Amino acid sequence: MTSTGQARRTGSTEPVWWGWGPASAHEPLPDEVRGLLARLGIPARPTAPVPLDQVRLPPARLPVVAREALATIVGSGHVHTHDEARIRHCRGRSTTDLLRLRAGDAGAAPDAVVLPADHDEVLAVLRLASRERIVVVPFGGGTSVVGGLEPARPAERPVVALDLARLDALGRVDRESGTAELGAGLRGPRAEALLAEHGLSLGHVPQSWEYATIGGFAATRSSGQASAGYGRFDELVVGLRVATPVGSWELGRAPASAAGPDLRELLLGSEGAFGVITQVVARVRPLPARRIFEGWSVPDFATGTRLLRTLAAGDLRPTVCRLSDETETVGGLARPPRPGGPAAATGSGSGTGTDLADGLTGGCHLVTGYEGAAPAVERRAAEVAGVLLAGGARRLDAAAGPDWERGRFRAPYLRDALLDQGIFAETLETAGFWATLPALYAGVRAALIGSLGAAQLSPVVMCHISHLYATGASLYFTVVCAQGVDPIGSWRAAKTAAGDAIVAAGGTITHHHAVGTEHRPWLDAEIGGLGVDVLRAVKRTLDPAGILNPGILVA
Amino acid sequence: MTSTGQARRTGSTEPVWWGWGPASAHEPLPDEVRGLLARLGIPARPTAPVPLDQVRLPPARLPVVAREALATIVGSGHVHTHDEARIRHCRGRSTTDLLRLRAGDAGAAPDAVVLPADHDEVLAVLRLASRERIVVVPFGGGTSVVGGLEPARPAERPVVALDLARLDALGRVDRESGTAELGAGLRGPRAEALLAEHGLSLGHVPQSWEYATIGGFAATRSSGQASAGYGRFDELVVGLRVATPVGSWELGRAPASAAGPDLRELLLGSEGAFGVITQVVARVRPLPARRIFEGWSVPDFATGTRLLRTLAAGDLRPTVCRLSDETETVGGLARPPRPGGPAAATGSGSGTGTDLADGLTGGCHLVTGYEGAAPAVERRAAEVAGVLLAGGARRLDAAAGPDWERGRFRAPYLRDALLDQGIFAETLETAGFWATLPALYAGVRAALIGSLGAAQLSPVVMCHISHLYATGASLYFTVVCAQGVDPIGSWRAAKTAAGDAIVAAGGTITHHHAVGTEHRPWLDAEIGGLGVDVLRAVKRTLDPAGILNPGILVA
Repeated sequence: MTSTGQARRTGSTEPVWWGWGPASAHEPLPDEVRGLLARLGIPARPTAPVPLDQVRLPPARLPVVAREALATIVGSGHVHTHDEARIRHCRGRSTTDLLRLRAGDAGAAPDAVVLPADHDEVLAVLRLASRERIVVVPFGGGTSVVGGLEPARPAERPVVALDLARLDALGRVDRESGTAELGAGLRGPRAEALLAEHGLSLGHVPQSWEYATIGGFAATRSSGQASAGYGRFDELVVGLRVATPVGSWELGRAPASAAGPDLRELLLGSEGAFGVITQVVARVRPLPARRIFEGWSVPDFATGTRLLRTLAAGDLRPTVCRLSDETETVGGLARPPRPGGPAAATGSGSGTGTDLADGLTGGCHLVTGYEGAAPAVERRAAEVAGVLLAGGARRLDAAAGPDWERGRFRAPYLRDALLDQGIFAETLETAGFWATLPALYAGVRAALIGSLGAAQLSPVVMCHISHLYATGASLYFTVVCAQGVDPIGSWRAAKTAAGDAIVAAGGTITHHHAVGTEHRPWLDAEIGGLGVDVLRAVKRTLDPAGILNPGILVA
Repeated sequence: MTSTGQARRTGSTEPVWWGWGPASAHEPLPDEVRGLLARLGIPARPTAPVPLDQVRLPPARLPVVAREALATIVGSGHVHTHDEARIRHCRGRSTTDLLRLRAGDAGAAPDAVVLPADHDEVLAVLRLASRERIVVVPFGGGTSVVGGLEPARPAERPVVALDLARLDALGRVDRESGTAELGAGLRGPRAEALLAEHGLSLGHVPQSWEYATIGGFAATRSSGQASAGYGRFDELVVGLRVATPVGSWELGRAPASAAGPDLRELLLGSEGAFGVITQVVARVRPLPARRIFEGWSVPDFATGTRLLRTLAAGDLRPTVCRLSDETETVGGLARPPRPGGPAAATGSGSGTGTDLADGLTGGCHLVTGYEGAAPAVERRAAEVAGVLLAGGARRLDAAAGPDWERGRFRAPYLRDALLDQGIFAETLETAGFWATLPALYAGVRAALIGSLGAAQLSPVVMCHISHLYATGASLYFTVVCAQGVDPIGSWRAAKTAAGDAIVAAGGTITHHHAVGTEHRPWLDAEIGGLGVDVLRAVKRTLDPAGILNPGILVA
């Protein structure tokens, strides 16, 4: 796996406490983006994050005796109560999380940060916390965008962030079976680097890859940019080791089994509410010998959608496949500007503030990528090209695919640059069956534009399809708009409208971001009242004291 | 889907009450099999099943008031308490089930058989049963081989078989998404016939296909002969409708989701203990335009195993792939005798009674099958052939593949013919990762031969690999031996030894037969004590009165 993220290019990867990536990788908002936003009526209003020492934190409430007991388990050097550690473990990386942090609000900070060394120390911490009724927030990369790191805070109960960074080993590599044991705290790049020493790759590359961890991928059912080829993370998991308040749990004796329900699937997506995933046994593949990335233009989003359906239903999926709608194509997210070069897609800019693509007929940008053994990759690329060309797609210049790949981890850096200019940017996603996708797309788009437009925030709503399945696909929306006087409130209203639209159109409330606290209002619609009852019963069984992430996933 | 089962060729499909398939499809044991068994020291001892009117049944215990209440729900014509209905819903189709039935023992017969018309009637029956504490045994095809139809019978509680035969409709077909709603009571052939009217196919073809049902496939995590191409049944399920004692439950809003744990995976494999699956939304594909079946000979089982691993790890799986070990190859199960022709594999017959293949060097039989669009199928067949030929495989005559396909549903008929001769035949299966497969194979084989050999039953233990995954595969064992004085006890001992060997070698206790009552002793080892606790908690939530299949899956 060639690392292409900006953080990789700059040495230190320690992220800023108020945003994404290291400060050295931050760049000002490109002029062409600035100009485009101005033309759309989205005003810039430079706003810097407050200095670290001005962040407001609640007093740390961990009793001394509890702190000492924790130190006995993990060592005193691995229990932190200083402000920066607490701030760095406060909330996740949703835009509203960042807006609050940038404004100096760390009201949701844990009282302490604990870094266990291994599975047994996690078990011991959970036992202690159950006894002392300390709330435990499992912490991997801290990249949740759904409030997954901000559990309910029952009165008088201290909150500890359980940072799994030290569980970062590559365990047994079984080359014959194509599996590897990966520590839950391994971040994406480190996991790939360790596997690469064995000539292997996981191939799981979500947007959050630079910071998100193996345990987090599993706990949230993450899906990567290359999911069409490598599979979702849940499909890569063959075994799990979990520490729960009531003991250890290991699952996964075979690639598949009929020994009752697949309980791995109950832990995948459990979001730290049932236990702490400490190790994943994952399917791994040989490092790809050949990688091809291509850019296409298709006549319109509807045509492109039908083409992707043809590929997916015919078992002809590329490894990466991403179709931008007209607005995202014009907005340039589909093809980031090249360093020193002109912006790839500034468009003619006749946007109204609610639809950037109005009146444009430039088609839609499609990226296809292929990774694997050389002959297979080249043949697959040729087969897909045949379908695309027959369906009216036009091949873009040879740089279009590599351009996308180079910028594939760029979005959260761009968001920081937008927030620096007082411009709001956030994403949400869903998935549905092919037959429901057009109405799902239209419904969510209308809900977002309607809600944010009514607030006079000049929203630009962009979307792409990725994560192809035989029976459907995901829709990933990016929203850029003015912040107005209450960006958090405005976004909450827009997100509610979007969530209602998703449910009305028959989609899933989240394809790969998880439930957290933000999607809880729609969980009943998603899994039914009985589903919620079942999750509660499982929670009571595994976490009888209710110490793990209260209010996350299960109310 | 071309039907090739013997039952299909003979008109009526109503099976005999004591075995498999209609009487018209039964044939005497072929002379060559008879001769082979005699040479192996497995004595024939003709034994006919007792006449139906000599079967011993416990008195029906359903109170009149309960019977009337059930009749009010489903109509009086759909509540049966006569002997034949009770006998036909007594136990499943394991060999020990058949031995008991053939001997006239229907001690496990339900007190009544109830046939609801639809989901709402199932719900109403479960509500009534919960109130009256009537045990309910969901009944699809009645083909369980793991005691899945013989729940615990708490004293004084009547037992009702809930036969889903009337839930046999094909519902909405979504051609664009490639999904179809299938009634739980649809048998394999009928489901395929209904889908074929739309040019579609499910492609799920387990050994039990002629009688097993859609609901049963889901409830037991069935896997078909073509699973390497079409996927296991659990992979084909995109949605489920379930009637539970506490209400309706519908799941499946998208091909994939991150909205918490995948609760479909909790119902798949739930074996009627959590609720009654009344409808499955399944992935369907276009009817295959081209079908190719080929036979191969590979030098030995170990070489063949490595070749299959190469194919599976390289994403080069045929649709069907089945590698017989040396004994199964010689035993002829890999290639059934052609009608009117010589037996395909009578071998030189130097078997010792514990190893039919001793001293034979004829290699191992491998069947590959391909189904789909013509060019893709032909290219895949050529690619696989390249790998096989390079690995030392030799192509058999053109009839070898079609011979296997013609006989693909033949095994349970052959078992009836063996039982008619007083010869025991049974199967068991497991799965493991590629690295564990050789030890798993050796361990289970030694356990079966050791246990049955010690009882002087001259066991022949055959095995094949099928159901390929990137990380591993399943092992399917067929045992033929003398019955001796206590075949049920001897098999229980052998099965226990095999189960212990599976656990010791790190395999799963069942790859596609489910848990039932027979695999319960190993469930703790498989899913851990916490796994069992979680299943119990789910059971209490969905079936608080404990009416559904008590003792099945969850003790």
